Amino acid sequence: MYGAGDVRVEHVPDPAIQEPTDAIVRIVRAAICGSDLQPYHSMAATDQGRRMGHEYLGLVEDVGSEVTRLRRGDLVVASFTYQDNTCEYCAENLQISCPHGGRYGFNGVGGGQAEAIRVPQAQGTLVKLPVAEDSALLPGLLTLADVLCTGHHCAVKAEIGPGATVAVIGDGAVGLSAVIAAQRLGAEQIILMGNNKERTDLGREFGATDVVAERGEEGVERVRELTGGRGSQAVLDCVGTRLVLDTAFGAVGDGGVISRAGIPQYAEGPIGLDMLMRNLTLTGGATPARACIEQLLPDVLEGVIQPGRVFDRAIGLDQTPDGYRAINDREALKVIIQP
Amino acid sequence: MYGAGDVRVEHVPDPAIQEPTDAIVRIVRAAICGSDLQPYHSMAATDQGRRMGHEYLGLVEDVGSEVTRLRRGDLVVASFTYQDNTCEYCAENLQISCPHGGRYGFNGVGGGQAEAIRVPQAQGTLVKLPVAEDSALLPGLLTLADVLCTGHHCAVKAEIGPGATVAVIGDGAVGLSAVIAAQRLGAEQIILMGNNKERTDLGREFGATDVVAERGEEGVERVRELTGGRGSQAVLDCVGTRLVLDTAFGAVGDGGVISRAGIPQYAEGPIGLDMLMRNLTLTGGATPARACIEQLLPDVLEGVIQPGRVFDRAIGLDQTPDGYRAINDREALKVIIQP
Repeated sequence: MYGAGDVRVEHVPDPAIQEPTDAIVRIVRAAICGSDLQPYHSMAATDQGRRMGHEYLGLVEDVGSEVTRLRRGDLVVASFTYQDNTCEYCAENLQISCPHGGRYGFNGVGGGQAEAIRVPQAQGTLVKLPVAEDSALLPGLLTLADVLCTGHHCAVKAEIGPGATVAVIGDGAVGLSAVIAAQRLGAEQIILMGNNKERTDLGREFGATDVVAERGEEGVERVRELTGGRGSQAVLDCVGTRLVLDTAFGAVGDGGVISRAGIPQYAEGPIGLDMLMRNLTLTGGATPARACIEQLLPDVLEGVIQPGRVFDRAIGLDQTPDGYRAINDREALKVIIQP
Repeated sequence: MYGAGDVRVEHVPDPAIQEPTDAIVRIVRAAICGSDLQPYHSMAATDQGRRMGHEYLGLVEDVGSEVTRLRRGDLVVASFTYQDNTCEYCAENLQISCPHGGRYGFNGVGGGQAEAIRVPQAQGTLVKLPVAEDSALLPGLLTLADVLCTGHHCAVKAEIGPGATVAVIGDGAVGLSAVIAAQRLGAEQIILMGNNKERTDLGREFGATDVVAERGEEGVERVRELTGGRGSQAVLDCVGTRLVLDTAFGAVGDGGVISRAGIPQYAEGPIGLDMLMRNLTLTGGATPARACIEQLLPDVLEGVIQPGRVFDRAIGLDQTPDGYRAINDREALKVIIQP
């Protein structure tokens, strides 16, 4: 990506091992993430460009000398950030805060929307998948890289458990993943707030018990009606706009939790007296995907959950710029790339 | 109180039962709360005035027909709001949200800084105390009305437990109560941020392991030093200013919790991208005192905790205006009134 709206597919030198903790992975599937739209909207033009993509799975081609638990030919999925997975932060499932970790596309590290990638901290980042390269499960397994874990973490931080009432705001891939997660964690009532019927229909299949198409104040009123007037015990913000945050504060019941997965597109929010008097909690955060992958992998392998259904368009690497456009235009829900 | 800085002691008619759920209580001890300073600073002048005081204990003089579990002569402490304690909110320890509840000094209900008071929802509000009217425990028991429960709730919402590291911001009566609560819940390291030596010394006796007198960025640096660079797992905001909130966000470690007891003196706060990436939680709230009283009463009665030590000035009812002045000037930590 060379700037807002400017995505190009280019030939670059093959990646090579640089550190003993590196691995080289040949990409088998990659995805375009909703968060990739942020630079697509606002990135300043640059001569160098940024390599994109943080959701990928692929085959290990080479490993550094300290990578002892992976070998050439392993099919692996990566977490959307890399981390050593051994430090005190990682031990507390704060992989996102790992001092030896980082993000793809920065500091000389490539992206997953590519034919191959050098993966730093490979052993702490890549998880071996017990399926073949042509498995029908690949789309579902690819969601483990980020989007499914993001929805899962959001639901976990909201302490969703058996019998819970939860409102999920957003019918994008993160919102639908949050529905999957809430259902998996035992929520009794799952209100999906979104107005794209195809997506909310999929949300119903994933476990949403109610759909609220209205936005803003009207949406809040609908959620309150559906929850006996009290508001939802938990609200999962899977969008990130200030309007959605305000909706979340309106839809949550006293004593409830707002958990955020959407990247905040605001610097400040309404956390004054009303929040205190209503005993509300604001939580959520960037998912510790590396930890979540291991928790969720069995259910994906066994088909208990089918997160791969969020992909509604498959493209080749050359079509990646159009994939960005299609997601941006809400023409595609989630795009899978097969290099 | 007739307006900012304008507190008067006046003769008014004796209160009488109005509803079958009322009780009349003759006040034995009352207190001035830090939150009483808010109208003392900013209340618009009014002809009617507002009756003040929401921390009191006293003797039941009369009860309405539906008050079956209290009788004349009972020594009782009240929660700082009244509530039925039977509705679904109260059942979830959200007494503050009780639809049949309310605050003293509003809607025809008097205040506790008085000789007597009509208590609405008496059965859901008053807790019988198994001591005599002249017990030396009265100051400690009076803290159950609000300040101790406020500190306790703040610590509970922060999920303070054995081994926890916690920073308490504020050396006022709420901050010191939060130290008591954190110590009682098993915190291993309790860093008290405050710069009034007498108060922080009392905080050390209550269980603070470290005192940080510096404020703002310097205070944040000190907390980080004291926590091995990581920041505190929990930060209890017992002040409520925006500066303190910013300090809390600086002093809390990734993955940690900021819990608020101080009444926010701001409408918006810094809950953007950084909070999400650091996996921070913002919680706390108005305490469900009625529930906390029953939890904490045994420890106060047995002297396990000595929250009554926060009172450093005792006055008669006539001196109440000067009590407000003394607290406002930080001349007194907490004032107890004996009508």
